[in-house]
Amino acid sequence: MSELDTELNGRELAREARELDAADELAGLRARFVLDDAVYLDGNSLGALPVSVPGRLADVVHREWGELRIRSWDESGWWAAPERIGDRIAPLVGAAPGQIVVGDSTSVNVFKALVAAVRMADPAGDGRRDEILVDATTFPTDGYIAESAARMTGRTLRPVTPAEVPAALSDRTAAVLLNHVDYRTGRLHDLPALTAAVHRAGAYIVWDLCHSAGALPVGLDEHGVDLAVGCTYKYLNGGPGSPAYLYVRHDLQPHFDSPLPGWTSHAQPFAMHPSYEPAAGALRGRVGTPDILSMLALEAALDVWYGGREGSAEGSGAGSGAEAEAGTGAGAGTGTGVAIESVRAKSLALTDFFLRCVSAYVPEGRVESLTPAAHAERGSQVALRCDDAGDVMKRLIHQGVIGDFRHPDVLRFGFTPLYVSFTDVERAARVLGETLGSLG
Amino acid sequence: MSELDTELNGRELAREARELDAADELAGLRARFVLDDAVYLDGNSLGALPVSVPGRLADVVHREWGELRIRSWDESGWWAAPERIGDRIAPLVGAAPGQIVVGDSTSVNVFKALVAAVRMADPAGDGRRDEILVDATTFPTDGYIAESAARMTGRTLRPVTPAEVPAALSDRTAAVLLNHVDYRTGRLHDLPALTAAVHRAGAYIVWDLCHSAGALPVGLDEHGVDLAVGCTYKYLNGGPGSPAYLYVRHDLQPHFDSPLPGWTSHAQPFAMHPSYEPAAGALRGRVGTPDILSMLALEAALDVWYGGREGSAEGSGAGSGAEAEAGTGAGAGTGTGVAIESVRAKSLALTDFFLRCVSAYVPEGRVESLTPAAHAERGSQVALRCDDAGDVMKRLIHQGVIGDFRHPDVLRFGFTPLYVSFTDVERAARVLGETLGSLG
Repeated sequence: MSELDTELNGRELAREARELDAADELAGLRARFVLDDAVYLDGNSLGALPVSVPGRLADVVHREWGELRIRSWDESGWWAAPERIGDRIAPLVGAAPGQIVVGDSTSVNVFKALVAAVRMADPAGDGRRDEILVDATTFPTDGYIAESAARMTGRTLRPVTPAEVPAALSDRTAAVLLNHVDYRTGRLHDLPALTAAVHRAGAYIVWDLCHSAGALPVGLDEHGVDLAVGCTYKYLNGGPGSPAYLYVRHDLQPHFDSPLPGWTSHAQPFAMHPSYEPAAGALRGRVGTPDILSMLALEAALDVWYGGREGSAEGSGAGSGAEAEAGTGAGAGTGTGVAIESVRAKSLALTDFFLRCVSAYVPEGRVESLTPAAHAERGSQVALRCDDAGDVMKRLIHQGVIGDFRHPDVLRFGFTPLYVSFTDVERAARVLGETLGSLG
Repeated sequence: MSELDTELNGRELAREARELDAADELAGLRARFVLDDAVYLDGNSLGALPVSVPGRLADVVHREWGELRIRSWDESGWWAAPERIGDRIAPLVGAAPGQIVVGDSTSVNVFKALVAAVRMADPAGDGRRDEILVDATTFPTDGYIAESAARMTGRTLRPVTPAEVPAALSDRTAAVLLNHVDYRTGRLHDLPALTAAVHRAGAYIVWDLCHSAGALPVGLDEHGVDLAVGCTYKYLNGGPGSPAYLYVRHDLQPHFDSPLPGWTSHAQPFAMHPSYEPAAGALRGRVGTPDILSMLALEAALDVWYGGREGSAEGSGAGSGAEAEAGTGAGAGTGTGVAIESVRAKSLALTDFFLRCVSAYVPEGRVESLTPAAHAERGSQVALRCDDAGDVMKRLIHQGVIGDFRHPDVLRFGFTPLYVSFTDVERAARVLGETLGSLG
């Protein structure tokens, strides 16, 4: 393509981006975040700051901690925060209330879930079902923790690709740990079919939702998922290292036997009994004293999904009060103001448009998309294999296009439908094309 | 004692309190906290808000998360926060740098430490040393987690009182988990002697420092402690549910085999290797992504020990700039501005004075102190057994004396030497006496 063609094509794509933005029913949600002139395509690593967070966190610090102090465990609702915030996340992943608790890191929750799954698969404790299958392409921490869980439950860990799972299942399989979306390629795995296959084998499934929750429908209840974990600092925008969550399906809760039975999961935590008796329900996924500052920042961040707080005094000036479209995207069926189905539709439109713009702007053969073309197999990110990816990403960031680099040769771009616009997408692809063109 | 005697005695004690306050070299530290008219004797449950926290946390949220976003993992030092803050805590517990990491809850750290201790005691993995001793009087979570650690490492858990430990030790003992200070009675256990006894038996010791760190010298390095854990929201004032910490003695670090080998403890965390290789040093106590908001609030809270930030713009008006006595208490030997030895001296003076005031004000036989009279056996709290303790504590709180109630019959008063005055102590005992007197 000649330079002139590229330029004409570019004008056309820029115009199209503006039209897509104008028609975007979620466009107003951008005002619920603190953003600047950069194109932020790293929300799959750390979500942007919601406008609702700073004021709420200041109140937690000054009034709830500073003034009420110890009384806040009751009076400010600190004690019940893990399950209350779990219920706020629930609609986003297709779960009815009472099945999610927030707390600890994703790694710690993977450990709880996987050990508990093995124990469910071997209720007599006689060592039957001696294998754990784990996604060989997973984010490494899941694999490391799975290895520890296998070692500590006397099981063998068997890494397989998600595609190999159906053939690898047998009556030896106790539990299977899979990622809903591959953190590197952005590939979305078939949660309903894989869950069903695991169940046919009589085993238990643990899904890691880190790269899907908040970006696309998960349908935990609908598909009969057993256990799930996820972080909250990507598409849920909870803040750096914000607490993770654990889902335990309602009917499995009486059988959830935690390897980390901390005092806050006790049936009577303040009776200080020397012997452990687990609480009923999802609460038995709790461990130690909840980490209140991070947890309540996350709770405020979730306001984004429930109507936002654009008009708050601490609103950082970003769109203060200008947008008030609570109910955007018709939240019916999800329990939230923002429907996850609308978010998914925009996510696919964004990644489709990005791939088109990349085709138009980037010299032929310079990058290769690792992200599946089929919508059913695509998460909310695009991963491009590229020589010198590390150097290229540095240059992009220098020009205000923030993605990230995954060793050794991947440019990773995350598209958070709540605040990424089509204009952002066109600009990112254009800057990428210019950068790769100038690098020759 | 007649009412007149009590009143005369009371005038005398009030005068003495004022004199003790006037002579208190740590008195100025109170300005480093947000306090009100209440007498806050619950710092052993939730420490008061340090003046240094709100401004710093607002900066973390607005600038580091809101503006720098993902760049802050490097540029704002987020990634190294667990070990950096560990090094800030280290002098307070008598540890050289490089042995403490901050993160997770106390319960999770007890699990890491105890499993690692059992593995150290059985390097060949042949099941030798099949017992774990645990403090039978411990805060329950330690016992629950110890039971899980025993179950998952194939050991037998044997609860004993700390006094019974020396006799219970044998070549069957793998590890011993003890509390430095009993959360209920305030009894301080003999860490040097118990550590030495455990070592003579060839076993490993894990100390829980929740109720001692920040209130008295611990001397981890000096006494050759193997592993230790502690929370940071009591005498370290890190905020509700702030992250806990894990100490692994330097020479044991190569043998620390974590049951929670999350990705942030990997030797090359960003290489995303499918196989686990632990980092060198204390870093292998890390697990998942660090919880930045809570962790940096804790870091700011520790300013109290290093000179404070009373003059900060966000200083909440409490003592803004009026006090500037960095170096109070001659921090030589601890590496901090506030010497833990001075804190200990004041702590004992406070609890001594409280016990005297209680004797003077409280009707004979109405309460019984569970806290040892001997200084060597006393932490920084006083526990009084009292009929109707729950009701009595409610009345005290209503009158601005904040302690807490421990089921079934204990009034618990914690004395944080950084901000509790002798005048506070006299008032608390007087209100207690009046309350118990009026209750008949």
